Amino acid sequence: MEETKKISSAVIRRLPRYYRYLGELIESGVQRISSKELSDKMKVTASQIRQDLNNFGGFGQQGYGYNVKYLYDEISKILGIDRTHNMIIVGAGNLGQALVNSGDFAKRGFLIKGVFDNNSALKNKKIGALEIRMMDELTAFIRDNEIEIAALTIPKQAAKEVAKTVVDAGVKAIWNFAHTDLNLPEDVIVENVHLSESLMRLSYTIANKEE
Amino acid sequence: MEETKKISSAVIRRLPRYYRYLGELIESGVQRISSKELSDKMKVTASQIRQDLNNFGGFGQQGYGYNVKYLYDEISKILGIDRTHNMIIVGAGNLGQALVNSGDFAKRGFLIKGVFDNNSALKNKKIGALEIRMMDELTAFIRDNEIEIAALTIPKQAAKEVAKTVVDAGVKAIWNFAHTDLNLPEDVIVENVHLSESLMRLSYTIANKEE
Repeated sequence: MEETKKISSAVIRRLPRYYRYLGELIESGVQRISSKELSDKMKVTASQIRQDLNNFGGFGQQGYGYNVKYLYDEISKILGIDRTHNMIIVGAGNLGQALVNSGDFAKRGFLIKGVFDNNSALKNKKIGALEIRMMDELTAFIRDNEIEIAALTIPKQAAKEVAKTVVDAGVKAIWNFAHTDLNLPEDVIVENVHLSESLMRLSYTIANKEE
Repeated sequence: MEETKKISSAVIRRLPRYYRYLGELIESGVQRISSKELSDKMKVTASQIRQDLNNFGGFGQQGYGYNVKYLYDEISKILGIDRTHNMIIVGAGNLGQALVNSGDFAKRGFLIKGVFDNNSALKNKKIGALEIRMMDELTAFIRDNEIEIAALTIPKQAAKEVAKTVVDAGVKAIWNFAHTDLNLPEDVIVENVHLSESLMRLSYTIANKEE
């Protein structure tokens, strides 16, 4: 993976979108595609596509276009989704249920192994095939099941404490839906999904268009 | 609002986080705060805070710190959340329910006026106080209720068609949770929340730390 280190963070941010389009092409049975055709589909300039994808090879002779499957596989390696990741969901409310019920994550190798809540009324209830577990099982479950990622779909008041618990138990990365910063040690990976902030960016764009 | 046009997009992206911290300070009864104190809270350098917030004024004499409420109000104007926005949710699954049940959006002036689904088994059922409506009411409802924003929490197969319907009915902005690009006219505002892509960025960070 040495050569991937030179790839700029701007390219990395664009990779999931390439990955999605290449996956759709594979589903449609497309084996090769030119930068011009991909440009028309993705509404990105062909020159940007050439610059981005030339980081990963997979381009044959001039006029033959990209090898779709090869590029797809290379990008999946860069993104670390060429292997599986064990994940838990903490918070069995609507958002936690939405994550458990989405098949999209499992398809990309994110395996939801457990779902937890502090509401004893939910004990032994199920979301799909997964039984809702209580918080006193959390630490042992993370250790026994080699859990790498914890998604926190809980209110912000509880988030800092739960984050500390899962990290102490061995979780490497937190997918944080709680609307607060977690203040964890710097070596813990945190990816925030702050829905309110996304909605504010949207209203900023509305306000500035109206001016 | 003319002077706001000079604010860089990097500052704009950081504004929702300032807004959140300033809101928490107001809740705690704090009236003034120095850039040093805010810096310690937010884990951003004091110099970045001064540069960012000096765009909006609200800083008194040296040594007096920022007027928290003034800055909060100025930022809310810039973000367009000093007024209310009427919103609908299309898709009454777990994710749609999570949005309807979250009080956070209403607090910031995003008023969820209706929720829609194409599953007739949900007809007349309620999420909280809101009745789930069928898709044949969608166009009239948008017109009658001056709906500005539609959140799409539906599968990607249906998203492009529904997006076109709501835009034709007068919606200005789409908050898109469907994992696809919508290919709408350029004057339609789209804010994407692609959860799979967020999770891939997280796994990229895990993969690159392990190297």
